[in-house]
Amino acid sequence: MGESFGQWQMGCDEQAMPFIDQASIACGFHASDPTIMSKTIKLAIQHNVMIGAHPSYPDLQGFGRRSIPCSEAEITNLVIYQVGALKAMCESQNTEIRYVKPHGALYNDMQKDPLIFEAVVDAVSCFNVPLMTLAIQDKQVMLDIADNYDVPLLFEAFADRRYLSSGQLAPRSLPGSVIHDENEILDQVRQITHYGKVRTLDGYTISIDADTICVHGDNLDAVRMIEKIRTSINGDIGQ
Amino acid sequence: MGESFGQWQMGCDEQAMPFIDQASIACGFHASDPTIMSKTIKLAIQHNVMIGAHPSYPDLQGFGRRSIPCSEAEITNLVIYQVGALKAMCESQNTEIRYVKPHGALYNDMQKDPLIFEAVVDAVSCFNVPLMTLAIQDKQVMLDIADNYDVPLLFEAFADRRYLSSGQLAPRSLPGSVIHDENEILDQVRQITHYGKVRTLDGYTISIDADTICVHGDNLDAVRMIEKIRTSINGDIGQ
Amino acid sequence: MGESFGQWQMGCDEQAMPFIDQASIACGFHASDPTIMSKTIKLAIQHNVMIGAHPSYPDLQGFGRRSIPCSEAEITNLVIYQVGALKAMCESQNTEIRYVKPHGALYNDMQKDPLIFEAVVDAVSCFNVPLMTLAIQDKQVMLDIADNYDVPLLFEAFADRRYLSSGQLAPRSLPGSVIHDENEILDQVRQITHYGKVRTLDGYTISIDADTICVHGDNLDAVRMIEKIRTSINGDIGQ
Amino acid sequence: MGESFGQWQMGCDEQAMPFIDQASIACGFHASDPTIMSKTIKLAIQHNVMIGAHPSYPDLQGFGRRSIPCSEAEITNLVIYQVGALKAMCESQNTEIRYVKPHGALYNDMQKDPLIFEAVVDAVSCFNVPLMTLAIQDKQVMLDIADNYDVPLLFEAFADRRYLSSGQLAPRSLPGSVIHDENEILDQVRQITHYGKVRTLDGYTISIDADTICVHGDNLDAVRMIEKIRTSINGDIGQ
Repeated sequence: MGESFGQWQMGCDEQAMPFIDQASIACGFHASDPTIMSKTIKLAIQHNVMIGAHPSYPDLQGFGRRSIPCSEAEITNLVIYQVGALKAMCESQNTEIRYVKPHGALYNDMQKDPLIFEAVVDAVSCFNVPLMTLAIQDKQVMLDIADNYDVPLLFEAFADRRYLSSGQLAPRSLPGSVIHDENEILDQVRQITHYGKVRTLDGYTISIDADTICVHGDNLDAVRMIEKIRTSINGDIGQ
Repeated sequence: MGESFGQWQMGCDEQAMPFIDQASIACGFHASDPTIMSKTIKLAIQHNVMIGAHPSYPDLQGFGRRSIPCSEAEITNLVIYQVGALKAMCESQNTEIRYVKPHGALYNDMQKDPLIFEAVVDAVSCFNVPLMTLAIQDKQVMLDIADNYDVPLLFEAFADRRYLSSGQLAPRSLPGSVIHDENEILDQVRQITHYGKVRTLDGYTISIDADTICVHGDNLDAVRMIEKIRTSINGDIGQ
Repeated sequence: MGESFGQWQMGCDEQAMPFIDQASIACGFHASDPTIMSKTIKLAIQHNVMIGAHPSYPDLQGFGRRSIPCSEAEITNLVIYQVGALKAMCESQNTEIRYVKPHGALYNDMQKDPLIFEAVVDAVSCFNVPLMTLAIQDKQVMLDIADNYDVPLLFEAFADRRYLSSGQLAPRSLPGSVIHDENEILDQVRQITHYGKVRTLDGYTISIDADTICVHGDNLDAVRMIEKIRTSINGDIGQ
Repeated sequence: MGESFGQWQMGCDEQAMPFIDQASIACGFHASDPTIMSKTIKLAIQHNVMIGAHPSYPDLQGFGRRSIPCSEAEITNLVIYQVGALKAMCESQNTEIRYVKPHGALYNDMQKDPLIFEAVVDAVSCFNVPLMTLAIQDKQVMLDIADNYDVPLLFEAFADRRYLSSGQLAPRSLPGSVIHDENEILDQVRQITHYGKVRTLDGYTISIDADTICVHGDNLDAVRMIEKIRTSINGDIGQ
């Protein structure tokens, strides 16, 4: 959320906000600026949506999707900087950040490299909120690092991304890695939320234990999908 | 302080830090980056120096010395963003920011335009610290605005800048606006701290009621000057 | 044209390109990057559209719409830099730039300040192409400056902007300054191209002698308008 | 050369320029801005120094020393953009660029990856000048690629860097990779220019066939070294 920049629009925040519980808000390094951040916080408050910080490598041109070579100390510092900036903007509107979820390449890199994961955890430990990360099968390495810093983890599953049998997300470069069919997306959400299972790209079924489901709101079709997922989950809860 | 950027060095922070009481630390918009900020905070802690946030217009290329056209709301937001970022970095090192002093063109613009002054005050009010501003003769407008937001003001005088008889700083473009002679600088500091007076560029003497004296640490000569000012003030206090 | 940036889209270049004769292509300072520039040049070549350079103040965040304080020498240098970059990219695709049209605040500032106009003309004189500028009533000052540098001028009129009786564009902040009604836009184009006249915001009719008509292609409605203007002009030419 | 940025100074261009034959001038992506470029060109002209373009990955914060993930097409485009910008600035001062030498990580990456080398060669082919690259022992791969694009290569050796026995530069992270001792630097230059030989970090002697010697001018000690190298080479030529 809040991924516009200057005159450039990105996403359908106003349309998507009514249907989500948590909004990960860009902090100015891959997208956004202080005024866009302020408006996005206001929108989240209006819809009673929990705010998370969405820090990134410093890379506006690459939208945070490129791995910018940074030392671990640099990563810790740039995460503290961004989360601190968003936190102050939240507090100026009498709300607060409730979790941190790194964006793009930083999110992917921390799954792959425990040193980067630790650098992020170190930063998050300053804010007394959980770190959101990918719900993989073997969480022990991540849990051990996070425990050392007393940082709770929130595990998330993806509604519209296929998994590998390792439990990692299939990279976007693989054909079929992104699910476009509405029914398949709804089915994957149901599998995850009801049974803690997900089917992999190569046909296996693996367990997945997730606290939250990640959806995207990049275009109006995506927003309509979010609404259906919302209805589907609410129906489940209602039963 | 902390006004380097990437590979580019600026200032003599290590040499100057032992002789000052307060360090205004750049927040990434006119200079610095998260890692430089972290190092500068550490240096201030080592020397027991009080930390202030030094936010700016977003203008690395112009070092924050150009008036970038921004609405008041934009100014409020960009000040909250920068101060929040520095505050979090301070807290991660178990210290805190103790005041806010805008940098460069933003500092000058807020002296000239009460709407900009109010936009800055509004931002500073989120942090429960004083705003540092120029000690001019007629402070009432500034005090009234600041009172509305419950923001204390810290008034500063300049060791090495000449004043106009209006009490404003002589702009850098005026010949003689910057004092280079060591004895004249020491004399101006003594006039301000002992008698609350300062001589103007056109030969008058005006009152100036300052809480703090601004010095610069851009080069080694400047740092030696700081040391002498320190000794001079300490001598006075010792009496 | 070519005003996207990284992942952010702007404009409907593919839809608009078939209906225009000249495309002013952003050069990376207010929008675009080298790869977007390359694609936009390719698109212009496909549709046999003449390419102009669209240099700007350095201001991605403000989309070039803010007056960034720059000296005249800085303006000359930043225009040479941007036009040179686009020129080389054109030559790598065996085409060339045919004119220069400054963007946004730089375009407006050069109309208001002859020193800025001269700084731009100085830069354009390196490229042996005309400078595109606003068709105002009293062109003598501009023509004199341009003559000194042997730079031809191309005067443009605006299809969808109202004029003041001074012949300047009504600023966007004035109510009614932008024409939204389709028939009024077509009518203004016809008045300009047939009779060299335009009605002003305050009801007068003034002469306007234009070499080219500026249209915008920001959204699909705008593109449909361009198509109608094209048909209207072609019909006139056909008569 | 020309690696300052805004208010930040880098290098001792004025002191170094009298002693060199070729100046590789930064093009704004890792350092510099249009006005610094203009001044550096002027300085090169005054000292009759041949100008080369020194393009880089887009990375001011990392000074072009970080490998920014870019596709080959993006690399070609960003090199054309930067070289085109410098070329136009040279032509505005009635001089020209005489070669292209990529900077920092882009220079290193093109030695390691033939696809990146080809992307750079493709860009350079638009300018009808040679590409400067590292004088390694097996040049055939590079020569074949360059021949396909009709781009001449200029091979350079380094005065103050140690080599591996593979003929590659010892990476800066290896102890001893940078030579600080004056006599050893002068000796390495003499070995290269007289005998086409260089001693490696592990004690071997390998052949090196170089057209040019790279020196650095980052500080006044470095500049004094350049002066001595100049005297040494001139003495050789004089014999």
